[in-house]
Amino acid sequence: MKVDFPPSVEARLTRVSQLDGHIHALVEEPDRHGRLRREAAALTVGAPLHGWLLGVKDILHADGLVTRAGTALPPHLFAGDREAASVAALRRAGCLILGKTVTTEFAYFEPGPTRNPHDPEHTPGGSSSGSAAAVAAGYCELALGTQTVGSVIRPAAFCGIVGYKPSYGRVCTDGLLLCAPSVDTIGLFAADVAHLRQGASVLVDGWSQDEGQLPPRPVLGIPEGAYLAQASPEGSEAFARQVAILETAGYEIRRLPVLDDIDAINERHGLIQAAEMAIEHAPWLDAHLQDYRPRTREILLRGRQIDSGKLDSARAGREQLRSELAMTMRQAGIDLWICPAAKGPAPRGLASTGDPAMNLPWTHAGMPVLSLPAGRVGGLPLGLQCVAPYGQDEKLLGWAQDLAAAFA
Amino acid sequence: MKVDFPPSVEARLTRVSQLDGHIHALVEEPDRHGRLRREAAALTVGAPLHGWLLGVKDILHADGLVTRAGTALPPHLFAGDREAASVAALRRAGCLILGKTVTTEFAYFEPGPTRNPHDPEHTPGGSSSGSAAAVAAGYCELALGTQTVGSVIRPAAFCGIVGYKPSYGRVCTDGLLLCAPSVDTIGLFAADVAHLRQGASVLVDGWSQDEGQLPPRPVLGIPEGAYLAQASPEGSEAFARQVAILETAGYEIRRLPVLDDIDAINERHGLIQAAEMAIEHAPWLDAHLQDYRPRTREILLRGRQIDSGKLDSARAGREQLRSELAMTMRQAGIDLWICPAAKGPAPRGLASTGDPAMNLPWTHAGMPVLSLPAGRVGGLPLGLQCVAPYGQDEKLLGWAQDLAAAFA
Repeated sequence: MKVDFPPSVEARLTRVSQLDGHIHALVEEPDRHGRLRREAAALTVGAPLHGWLLGVKDILHADGLVTRAGTALPPHLFAGDREAASVAALRRAGCLILGKTVTTEFAYFEPGPTRNPHDPEHTPGGSSSGSAAAVAAGYCELALGTQTVGSVIRPAAFCGIVGYKPSYGRVCTDGLLLCAPSVDTIGLFAADVAHLRQGASVLVDGWSQDEGQLPPRPVLGIPEGAYLAQASPEGSEAFARQVAILETAGYEIRRLPVLDDIDAINERHGLIQAAEMAIEHAPWLDAHLQDYRPRTREILLRGRQIDSGKLDSARAGREQLRSELAMTMRQAGIDLWICPAAKGPAPRGLASTGDPAMNLPWTHAGMPVLSLPAGRVGGLPLGLQCVAPYGQDEKLLGWAQDLAAAFA
Repeated sequence: MKVDFPPSVEARLTRVSQLDGHIHALVEEPDRHGRLRREAAALTVGAPLHGWLLGVKDILHADGLVTRAGTALPPHLFAGDREAASVAALRRAGCLILGKTVTTEFAYFEPGPTRNPHDPEHTPGGSSSGSAAAVAAGYCELALGTQTVGSVIRPAAFCGIVGYKPSYGRVCTDGLLLCAPSVDTIGLFAADVAHLRQGASVLVDGWSQDEGQLPPRPVLGIPEGAYLAQASPEGSEAFARQVAILETAGYEIRRLPVLDDIDAINERHGLIQAAEMAIEHAPWLDAHLQDYRPRTREILLRGRQIDSGKLDSARAGREQLRSELAMTMRQAGIDLWICPAAKGPAPRGLASTGDPAMNLPWTHAGMPVLSLPAGRVGGLPLGLQCVAPYGQDEKLLGWAQDLAAAFA
C-alpha cells in the first residue's frame, strides 16, 4: 500500500527527521512512516482536523504504540489496552498520531532527553517535555500533555507556544496512566490560539461554541502578594513589561491581594500528589522499588506514609480555594487572572525541568489556564499565564486571540 | 427555599416512599428531599432530560453523596472527589439525582438487600441490583449501572426493563470505582427504548443521531452451540418462543455455530477480572482483608497470584474474539445476534444474584448489548439479549424499538 501523505504532513515529517536527532522530543519508533501511512489510509474525509499531526505524551495509551512513561519499569505493569479517550477523540476528528512524546518519569520530575528547540542547552520544561518541544519544533499541529502541578503551562512557556490546561474533570482521563487522579488534567499544546481552539472543541467535554455574548475584552486581575513574589527577579521584570504592553493595548487591569496562604496551598498540593501517586503505584511499588529513579522513588515512599485523614483534609481545602477565588473574581469584577507562567525563562541545563510554583495554586483549584507566548528574555521565550474561573474554558479561549495579539 | 417538584418528580418520590422500605433499591440518605429540592432549584430550563430522575449505582461518585460500594470497608479509602463524568453529563442534560442505588460489594457477587419488584422472594440480579429495581419500580426514568460480566443485562432481564451496555470505551469511566478496567463499561437502564435512547445520546461518546440509512429491519443471528447450551431448560424453551414470535413478526433469522470455545473464553475473562480487581484493590487489600465479604476476598487473593504474562495473553485473546465475531457477522449477513439475556428467569432467594454466563462473551469482546423485555415465565420477566458489532451502538438502539414492539 503506497499512500502519499498530504504536503503538510510530508513537510512536518521532514522536520522531524532533520531535527529530532538533536531535540529528542519523540520516543523512538521502529516504523513511524509505515504506521502513519496506514493511519492516513484509514482517514475519513471531511473530519474537522483532517490530516493534523498529534503528539501524544507517553503516559497516554495509543493504539499501536507501547506506553513507557519515561521509566525503566517494564511497560507490561501499566499496560492498558484501551486507547486513551482523549487520543481516540482527536483521532476520530481526523488527527494522525505522529508518535509518543517524551515525558519525565511517570510525569514527575526525573527528566527525559528532550532539549528546548529555542536553545538546546536549556530544558524544555516538563513533565510534558516532548509534547511542548514537538509543537515548538514544528513537528505537529497539536500535542497532548497532562498537568498535575505545572506540566503543561510551564513547558508551553519555556518553548514559546500556546499551552492549555482545561478545568479539572472536563477531559476524560480514561486510558491515562494516572499521577494524582484528583488533580490530573489532560491539556493541549499548539503553535497558536486558532489551532488550540479547534483542538479544545474536540477534546473538552460539553464544549460550547457559543461565544457571542462575550464582552469584547476581559477585565484582568493581578494576584498580588506572596504567590506572585515567588517569581524570579528576571521573571518579575518581564511580567511588569507584559502588564505594560496589555495596558498600552487598552486592557483594564486591577491589582488584588490574594493567595497569601500560598505556603499552605503548596504544602496541601504536595501532600495530595504524594499520597495519590503512592496509591496509583501500590500494585508494583515494592517489587520494583529499585527500578524507579531517585526523585520518583522518594515521593512514592513519602506518599505511602500519609494517612487518609490528612489526604481528605488536603482535598477539602482545595474545594474551598476554588470557591474563594471565584467569589473574589466576581466581587472585584475580574474576568481573568494574569501572572507569569513560570518563575522566569527556561533554566539552563537538562537535569531539572524547572519549578512549577507559578502554576500550582490554579491547578490546585482546578481552574482552566492558558499560557500565551509573551515576549522573550535573553533569547528565550516567556509565557503569560491567564486563568479563568472554574468551568469557563470557552471564555478563556474566546479571549485568548486578542490577548495573544498584544504580544505579536 | 421552597421549590415545588414537577408533578412527575412528586409522583415518583411518592412511589419511593411507599415501596422502597420493601424493595431496598436505594441506599438510604438522611435528607433526600432537601438535596433534591436544591438540585431542582439549580436546573436550567430547556435541557433535553429536564427533570428526569436518575439512579446512580453506588460505585460511581456523585456530588453530595458518599460512595460506599456495597462494602463494609471505610469509604474514605476509595473516595474520589470528582463526580463521575457519566453522572455529570446526565446532570448537565437536566437529570436530578434520585440517589445512590444498591450494588453488590464492589460490583462483584456479594449481594445487597434489594428485592425483585416483580416478586420480592427473587433476586433482582446484580451487580447493578438497585439500579434495575429502581427503574422497574417506577422510581426514576433512568439509572446508571456498570457491567464487567453481566451486571447490566442480567438485572435488566430479571426486572423486566430495558438495559444497555455500550461498546467498551464509549462511556468515560472517570469517577467510577473500577472493577476490571479493561472490561468495565458503564450502562443504562430505562423502562422503555425511547427513554433509553435519549439517555444514551447524552451518555455515549460521539453519539450519532444519523439513523437514516438503517435498513428497516436487521437480519438476526442465533449463536448456536456450546455457548447457547448454557441456558437452563426453562430459559431455552422461553428463547425458542421468543424466536418464534420474531419469526412471526417477519424477522429473518439465521442460525450459526459460534463460540464453541466458550469454556476457554469464560476462563480468560475470569482471569482478567480476578487479576485486574486485585490490582485495583492492592492499595488497601492487606490492611482490610478481613473487612471484605468471602466471595470478594476469594477473587482478590486469587487475582494477585496471576502473573502479568497470563493477564497479557488473556487480554490479547479478547481482541481476537471481537474481530472474529465481526467477521462472522459480515460473512453471514447478520446484523445482530439474539440470545437469552440470562440462563432463565430470576432465581428464587437473595443469596445469589444469578449467573452471568449468557452475557460473558459479549462483554469479553466489548460489543454493545441490549436486553429487551420479552415475555414472562412463571410470572417473572424474561429478557432478549441483542448484540451488535463493536462500535455500532446507534444501529443497535435504532432497531430496538421495533424489536421490543414484537413482544408488547
